[in-house]
Amino acid sequence: MATLQDIGVSAFINIVTAFAFLLAFALLRIQPINDRVYFPKWYISGARSSPRRAGNFVGKFVNLNVKTYFTFLNWMPQAMKMSQTEIINHAGLDSAVFLRIYTLGLKIFIPMTILALLILIPVNVSSGTLFFLRKELVVSDIDKLSISNVRPESIRFFVHIALQYLFTVWICFMLYKEYDIIASMRLRFLASQRRRAEQFTVVVSNVPHVSGKSKSDTVEQFFKTNHPNTYLCQQAVYNANKFAKLVRKRDRLQNWLDYNQLKFERHPDKRPTRKSGFLGFWGERVDSIDYYKKQIEEIEKRMALERQKILKDSKYILPVAFVSFNSRWGAAVCAQTQQSKNPTLWLTNWAPEPRDIYWRNLAIPFVSLSIRKLIISLSVFALVFFYMIPIAFVQSLANLEGLERVAPFLRPVIELEFIKSFLQGFLPGLALKIFLYILPTILMIMSKIEGYIAVSTLERRAAAKYYYFMLVNVFLGSIVTGTAFEQLHSFLHQSPTQIPRTIGVSIPMKATFFITYIMVDGWAGIAGEILRLKPLVIFHLKNMFLVKTERDREKAMDPGSVDFPETLPSLQLYFLLGIVYAVVTPILLPFILVFFALAYLVYRHQIINVYNQQYESAGAFWPHVHSRIIASLLISQLLLMGLLSTKKAANSTPLLVILPILTLSFHKYCKSRFEPAFRKYPLEEAMAKDLLDRTTEPDINLKAYLADAYLHPIFHSFEEEELVEVRVDKYQSRVASAPTSELSSPSPPHQVHHPSSPPHVYHPPPEHIYHPSSPPHYAYHPSSPPHYAYNYENES
Amino acid sequence: MATLQDIGVSAFINIVTAFAFLLAFALLRIQPINDRVYFPKWYISGARSSPRRAGNFVGKFVNLNVKTYFTFLNWMPQAMKMSQTEIINHAGLDSAVFLRIYTLGLKIFIPMTILALLILIPVNVSSGTLFFLRKELVVSDIDKLSISNVRPESIRFFVHIALQYLFTVWICFMLYKEYDIIASMRLRFLASQRRRAEQFTVVVSNVPHVSGKSKSDTVEQFFKTNHPNTYLCQQAVYNANKFAKLVRKRDRLQNWLDYNQLKFERHPDKRPTRKSGFLGFWGERVDSIDYYKKQIEEIEKRMALERQKILKDSKYILPVAFVSFNSRWGAAVCAQTQQSKNPTLWLTNWAPEPRDIYWRNLAIPFVSLSIRKLIISLSVFALVFFYMIPIAFVQSLANLEGLERVAPFLRPVIELEFIKSFLQGFLPGLALKIFLYILPTILMIMSKIEGYIAVSTLERRAAAKYYYFMLVNVFLGSIVTGTAFEQLHSFLHQSPTQIPRTIGVSIPMKATFFITYIMVDGWAGIAGEILRLKPLVIFHLKNMFLVKTERDREKAMDPGSVDFPETLPSLQLYFLLGIVYAVVTPILLPFILVFFALAYLVYRHQIINVYNQQYESAGAFWPHVHSRIIASLLISQLLLMGLLSTKKAANSTPLLVILPILTLSFHKYCKSRFEPAFRKYPLEEAMAKDLLDRTTEPDINLKAYLADAYLHPIFHSFEEEELVEVRVDKYQSRVASAPTSELSSPSPPHQVHHPSSPPHVYHPPPEHIYHPSSPPHYAYHPSSPPHYAYNYENES
Repeated sequence: MATLQDIGVSAFINIVTAFAFLLAFALLRIQPINDRVYFPKWYISGARSSPRRAGNFVGKFVNLNVKTYFTFLNWMPQAMKMSQTEIINHAGLDSAVFLRIYTLGLKIFIPMTILALLILIPVNVSSGTLFFLRKELVVSDIDKLSISNVRPESIRFFVHIALQYLFTVWICFMLYKEYDIIASMRLRFLASQRRRAEQFTVVVSNVPHVSGKSKSDTVEQFFKTNHPNTYLCQQAVYNANKFAKLVRKRDRLQNWLDYNQLKFERHPDKRPTRKSGFLGFWGERVDSIDYYKKQIEEIEKRMALERQKILKDSKYILPVAFVSFNSRWGAAVCAQTQQSKNPTLWLTNWAPEPRDIYWRNLAIPFVSLSIRKLIISLSVFALVFFYMIPIAFVQSLANLEGLERVAPFLRPVIELEFIKSFLQGFLPGLALKIFLYILPTILMIMSKIEGYIAVSTLERRAAAKYYYFMLVNVFLGSIVTGTAFEQLHSFLHQSPTQIPRTIGVSIPMKATFFITYIMVDGWAGIAGEILRLKPLVIFHLKNMFLVKTERDREKAMDPGSVDFPETLPSLQLYFLLGIVYAVVTPILLPFILVFFALAYLVYRHQIINVYNQQYESAGAFWPHVHSRIIASLLISQLLLMGLLSTKKAANSTPLLVILPILTLSFHKYCKSRFEPAFRKYPLEEAMAKDLLDRTTEPDINLKAYLADAYLHPIFHSFEEEELVEVRVDKYQSRVASAPTSELSSPSPPHQVHHPSSPPHVYHPPPEHIYHPSSPPHYAYHPSSPPHYAYNYENES
Repeated sequence: MATLQDIGVSAFINIVTAFAFLLAFALLRIQPINDRVYFPKWYISGARSSPRRAGNFVGKFVNLNVKTYFTFLNWMPQAMKMSQTEIINHAGLDSAVFLRIYTLGLKIFIPMTILALLILIPVNVSSGTLFFLRKELVVSDIDKLSISNVRPESIRFFVHIALQYLFTVWICFMLYKEYDIIASMRLRFLASQRRRAEQFTVVVSNVPHVSGKSKSDTVEQFFKTNHPNTYLCQQAVYNANKFAKLVRKRDRLQNWLDYNQLKFERHPDKRPTRKSGFLGFWGERVDSIDYYKKQIEEIEKRMALERQKILKDSKYILPVAFVSFNSRWGAAVCAQTQQSKNPTLWLTNWAPEPRDIYWRNLAIPFVSLSIRKLIISLSVFALVFFYMIPIAFVQSLANLEGLERVAPFLRPVIELEFIKSFLQGFLPGLALKIFLYILPTILMIMSKIEGYIAVSTLERRAAAKYYYFMLVNVFLGSIVTGTAFEQLHSFLHQSPTQIPRTIGVSIPMKATFFITYIMVDGWAGIAGEILRLKPLVIFHLKNMFLVKTERDREKAMDPGSVDFPETLPSLQLYFLLGIVYAVVTPILLPFILVFFALAYLVYRHQIINVYNQQYESAGAFWPHVHSRIIASLLISQLLLMGLLSTKKAANSTPLLVILPILTLSFHKYCKSRFEPAFRKYPLEEAMAKDLLDRTTEPDINLKAYLADAYLHPIFHSFEEEELVEVRVDKYQSRVASAPTSELSSPSPPHQVHHPSSPPHVYHPPPEHIYHPSSPPHYAYHPSSPPHYAYNYENES
């Protein structure tokens, strides 16, 4: 058990680490060469251009201005300068709401910390020693400040109960205020948005097959009948997954071709070669440039074939359509009502914004969705409770003997005593570390299998799964020793009233562990976040090997978005820790406070300077955060009940039983009061915006505006005359299922490439998304590699 | 423990009882004097008139036709004659769906019974004796036919598991088919209905208060703005609860006045008198006729005052309105969408049909609804688990000593040995019996407090509460001895996996109890139902003392409706028993079968001849029935798992664990597949009916048709010129909040009293509901006593 001194040492180490990170960041960010890594957002918004244009040669890479080194922490006040409104305009509402969670943490925990430290610490310390605990439990100094130090049956427990009441009321009050503010922010944000395609569009899934009719005709007829006054047009969805795969493959080959061509240019004496077999490892040696050229040719042939299939074969039209209406009111009505007698047909939902759509999942047949959901929920359960089993299995394999057998040439190295002991300590944990590192990716893949069609939903689902994992394996797993599976087993064989006691009694003893956890994961982790080590390295590597033009350099820096699937769950874990330990071991609270303050500063800086959100969900994740803070409250109340019942303060139970009931009622009230603002679009609002639009822009051609908003990004790489076929409504020329026509569209070509007004308003989409003028950079999937050819060093 | 012979004796007694009831019914029903008791439905539909017009004096009361006595069971084939379609036309869809539950029971249980008896009984019987049970457990003969007779760890359990699988699949299959049929019956029924007010109307609650504007104006303006193309008109709702109370009081006094006047007429020598004090028990003696006349006068003055208040005082207009649209499509859109930014304002829902509305609850302020719901759910929990506490308290008071103290004059009687022993056996149970008798009423009152505005919803909620009560106190309470509270306590202190074992192990032993229960409650109870003893007695009493005209006699017979709050839960209990015991003690199944068959016959007869449904919900209760049968399946699977685990057939658990998961998935699928048909109104359907209407009746004045459909029944007793104020839209004369106008309406008066087409189509409303021409018979509350004056005997 850690003493106060141990905690002090740990705190010192972590503070130094965090400080080192911050210092490194402060030094790196003022180097012009890193400018794109630390300020990509400003490049995207166009407010900043390469700082290397000015100055001498060295000054292009290294900051020679000595003065700036003395003000290296000035990013903090800079980060605070922007007002909330400016942040919304700059980075979107999602980012602003995300930051509000940190300020909410501060607002909740600052008064709680002061009160808990002032009242509870004296009460606990003066309560005598920990004489009642069994001898085998080693008591730490921290425990003397905690509730453990209070004698059983002491009247002092009423102080703790009173504070738990106070804290519950305070947290609920703050949550209510916050929900209110965020809900109205969301409504104001939605109301202030200019015309956006998704406001007029509904995604219809499970379109039934009517024999002898094309899907487009079926959809058109259905909505013309049932929404006669509001139906405007519809966009069929094509199954372009195979085509997209080919495009990705072609891009990858193109990258290799460029790389080899450049290599050849630099060393014209030696033509680059490669082996023709699997991954270039074996087979006969061939000329690389010729090889890749041939491969690309082949792929392009297959692409042409696939493209023809998509356009001609009606089987490639999915039973999904984007249906647009001539008013927001019409779309709101269609999205919220049931269309068909058979409730599994013609399912309507708000369309996500175009850049938020995860196109691949649109092709999932409806029937398999519920099976997928069932399977994934079982898998998540298994993952949360049994993840240790495969890891233990891998660990049993990954030992030194195994390593020696696989790679006998390593034996002399491994046999060295120093390296051997290092590996023996390192290898078993490796599997676990790798697993934890790839866990968010696994959870994201699971969410994708579930079949949600919006990236924002996918991220929220992944975040939920990660939260369950952390709750069971970090929170409960640390408190109750043993694997989650063992816990599950013992919980199933315990009486339900016993569980809070089991957990409650060991909670105060784990305070030191969680304090260390907060310092390592929270303090140092957040400081590492601002350093952006990985993007920094990748950017410089790309810069060295692939960048040839300024535009390529722009692309070399992917700013990324706030990583909601990871940050939200860990945030929620900190809320849980703070709320649970508030009355149990209040000394933990200051550590939480430091985390919230630091993380707030860091994320504020990152959101202003770095991240570029891929989509805008207008704070749709907030209800989840809210309900998980409520869940934390409930957990804390249950655990306190269990803890106090082991303290023989059993007469406190009736007092404490009221709290969860009140908390749940509060939650239910909040849900009915605010949640519809996040799920539905009130008609009043829609009508008001429609009327405003009609008066300000009475002669807008909405049909042309909406025509290609929901076109699969694949089609931006298609030929002009092919596009005519799928973007029917824009030119009113033909229906989608008709055979190819050689008639060129009568509209001017520029209209095809640059729709008169971009569908996204708050910040124009980054170049690599939806830029129709760059057909080979097919990139609806952000992870698809762009192809760079020239080495940056050569250019400079 | 009962032997097979005991069961036989019990069966014999119950069969004889049931037979006696049936015989009595058969004899009573062919007496002309009882004709109105046993065929009221036909009087209401007009197909039957008093049979007493023909024949001699005695023949008017007693059936002298000897032949009819020999065919006294011919009601059974008669009940079977009507086809389902005819029943729907005759009694409504609710009744038809209700009957289908019984046939579903037969369809499910007949194959199950055959299979279980053929396979399981031999398996169980041949399995050796019950040697493994501890000595203190007395083993009955029934147990030898049950799973108890199988040796632990026997391979034979796989037969039971296989059958459980088979039964689960079979039940799910039948449920799916049934849900499908009922959902399409519902849709067809709704589609085939003629124009009905509720198809065009939405009830809007929580209308916000806008200062300086009347509620009606606020509503009108809001819907004109947000539903400009479909909004038609609106009907404000007035708080007439106080007025209704006065009317009820006046009617009660009027009844007494009539009674006394008749008494005086019959005995003109003696003027009836009463004491003026409380309930006529003390105070000075006054002349009854004068007294009641004065009282009525007073009440009528107060009524006039209240009426003025309702019409003039804007506070009497509730923040609720019935908003009508010019098409079903418009109403469907409004009912399914969110109207306002603030999701607690402008809540829209389908309006129940006018006769289904429980007007009193419309006055409940919205804010108190969630509190009411919370309180009621806590009370139901308390009622289910702690109802024995107050009853035990009353029982402790209601003993012979207490009785002697309260009524010392009874002492000589009580002291008689025979009466004493009778009372000692009878009194303690009396409190419980009274409680169980009034329990449905208590539950109904609780549901009313919850604030639902439709009678159908109230009945469904009451049924749900009754089901929980039966599940815990009849099913679990009989299996696990001890009160429900003790069970709750022991369950809370047991591990969750232990509970199914505890219950499972005692299930086979309780089979005899449940067989007896089925015979007493099911067989004899159902036979009692057809006898209609209570209505028979009440009718003849009324006939004797109050009836003076033929119309009064018509009113003396309230046919009532199927008592859903009581019958549905007990039906569901029989499903539960059948499903749970199917593999455990299959000998119970034939008893269930007899119940379903008998009950089907009886209810078919009653629905055809007796009951007159108060409302038509188009089978809205079916999803509840479905989900409770699913719940029974889950319970049976869990209990079998527990039972088998005590049989050391632990390796069966993995096999059985799959079943609940499959069952739950099935339920989820059914829910998404069919439930929307019961909750929402698809736009496709609405549009189709609208179009049909437009072609068949293009020039209907919908506004006039809808104008007074949702007028509070109270207004039917108001004066013509007052009505102008509240039924604005019909005559287009003025708004509701304007001061009284002396202008008479230009429309012919008959239109006021008899709207051109009745709002209810399937069967015209019974006379005592909505008959505006009988102002003093104010009776929107069915239990309000009509006033009869002439003794029937005098008339004949």
